[in-house]
Amino acid sequence: MDNRPIGVFDSGLGGLTGVRELAKLLPGEDIVYFGDTARTPYGSRSRDTILRYGKQDIEFLLSKGVKAILCACNTVSSTLPETYTDALPVPFVGVVRAAAAAAAARSASGRIGIIATAATVRSGSYEAAIRPLRADARLTAQACPLFVPVIENGYLDRRNPITVTLAREYLAPIRAAGVDTLILGCTHYPLIAGTIADEMGPGVTLVDSGAEGALALRRLLEERDLLCGRVQGGNLSFYVSDSGENFAEIGALFLGRDLSGGIHPYTLLE
Amino acid sequence: MDNRPIGVFDSGLGGLTGVRELAKLLPGEDIVYFGDTARTPYGSRSRDTILRYGKQDIEFLLSKGVKAILCACNTVSSTLPETYTDALPVPFVGVVRAAAAAAAARSASGRIGIIATAATVRSGSYEAAIRPLRADARLTAQACPLFVPVIENGYLDRRNPITVTLAREYLAPIRAAGVDTLILGCTHYPLIAGTIADEMGPGVTLVDSGAEGALALRRLLEERDLLCGRVQGGNLSFYVSDSGENFAEIGALFLGRDLSGGIHPYTLLE
Repeated sequence: MDNRPIGVFDSGLGGLTGVRELAKLLPGEDIVYFGDTARTPYGSRSRDTILRYGKQDIEFLLSKGVKAILCACNTVSSTLPETYTDALPVPFVGVVRAAAAAAAARSASGRIGIIATAATVRSGSYEAAIRPLRADARLTAQACPLFVPVIENGYLDRRNPITVTLAREYLAPIRAAGVDTLILGCTHYPLIAGTIADEMGPGVTLVDSGAEGALALRRLLEERDLLCGRVQGGNLSFYVSDSGENFAEIGALFLGRDLSGGIHPYTLLE
Repeated sequence: MDNRPIGVFDSGLGGLTGVRELAKLLPGEDIVYFGDTARTPYGSRSRDTILRYGKQDIEFLLSKGVKAILCACNTVSSTLPETYTDALPVPFVGVVRAAAAAAAARSASGRIGIIATAATVRSGSYEAAIRPLRADARLTAQACPLFVPVIENGYLDRRNPITVTLAREYLAPIRAAGVDTLILGCTHYPLIAGTIADEMGPGVTLVDSGAEGALALRRLLEERDLLCGRVQGGNLSFYVSDSGENFAEIGALFLGRDLSGGIHPYTLLE
């Protein structure tokens, strides 16, 4: 048993979709969230910058005394080497490996699509994680760089013309590949899952990387006897590197509930 | 006469539209550009974060020995107080005051529109700069938060359906106000000036904030006898806080010429 909090981080708001799932699965756990809202988005930046930012995010969570870390950012999860995450003083779960395992298990045909940021697609991380699990897999990856700003600006209606036009453009090569499973390889994307599902049609299973990360973290805490002693009443705290104002407003959309009580602005670097 | 370089900065790429104009007006001047590509965009961040970033950008240019600074970022130009910019050791020109003066002079009816980032609109900086020059001005400001990502992702075709749909939505209140002058209050926007002009119609004059900033800087250098001794052959150097790769590719669109020779990645903060 371990009553220390779980740490979750993301480049900004998207990781809150992972927190939502984690708080459903483990409602007694305290969760400390860090969103690097002063430097979001990460998905269009270079590998070196993503590495530097990701390590700083993890160091911040470690300074809060967490017992395990869920990296709810596909971009960071794709970029940090295992030699680094394996050497951390607490267990680390990245959304990429969790979502890759779920997709490999669920796909009947082995034809799997991946939509993600430019950096995640460029890294080839999903291919690297799926290949050892499914030698027959045929993968089609597509960067969707405008999905994050469109979502953060609230274009969430299933039939919003901007979102639908972008989805049609981005998903065309995925549809053409005849996939039966599509990984939402960015924790923002569940907010437009309706539009994505409409475009892909009913025969395609969507895999939510944040939800899969939360499930993988629960399994890991169970296996290592790191769950806390409570089954209800876990406390959520939110740290952000920019001011907390916008975070409270838009964050509630991602978390599915009000979070105005527990937001602490924090300057990562002076 | 002063042969030191001119410093120009922006949160990312947009300020290159100002450099393009400056290099046309003063082809003999050396120009040092800084783009904070590891932390762009600024326009959706809080005032405190914008102040911190803007001051770091200026300190970087001062460390390069510049003789004057053009702030080609409307967001920073809207946020830095004059008490700070007046106290700098070199003259400082912000694009907001330059574009405000041009719009106040050119508008016949006094009905002036402003399109900009959320932070620039929230600051009220254009209203504050125009009011003393045109007591009869009637201003209509509209934040266009998706224009920057759409432009950086290359949706520049005049009839691109995404860009046209967004322009229609954002410009509706500006059209309804019957303006005769529209300030492009973000140095990215000249790249979609065609789409904006189509939407506004032929009776509306567009004011390019980067070009007006470049003109204001030339006047200032002339007045203070700070021009260099050359009339041709000025050298352009580009510093960016993220890797230079994407910058070279997309930056060429903004600058209107190749810039791959002079890019220096630079980490603003470790």
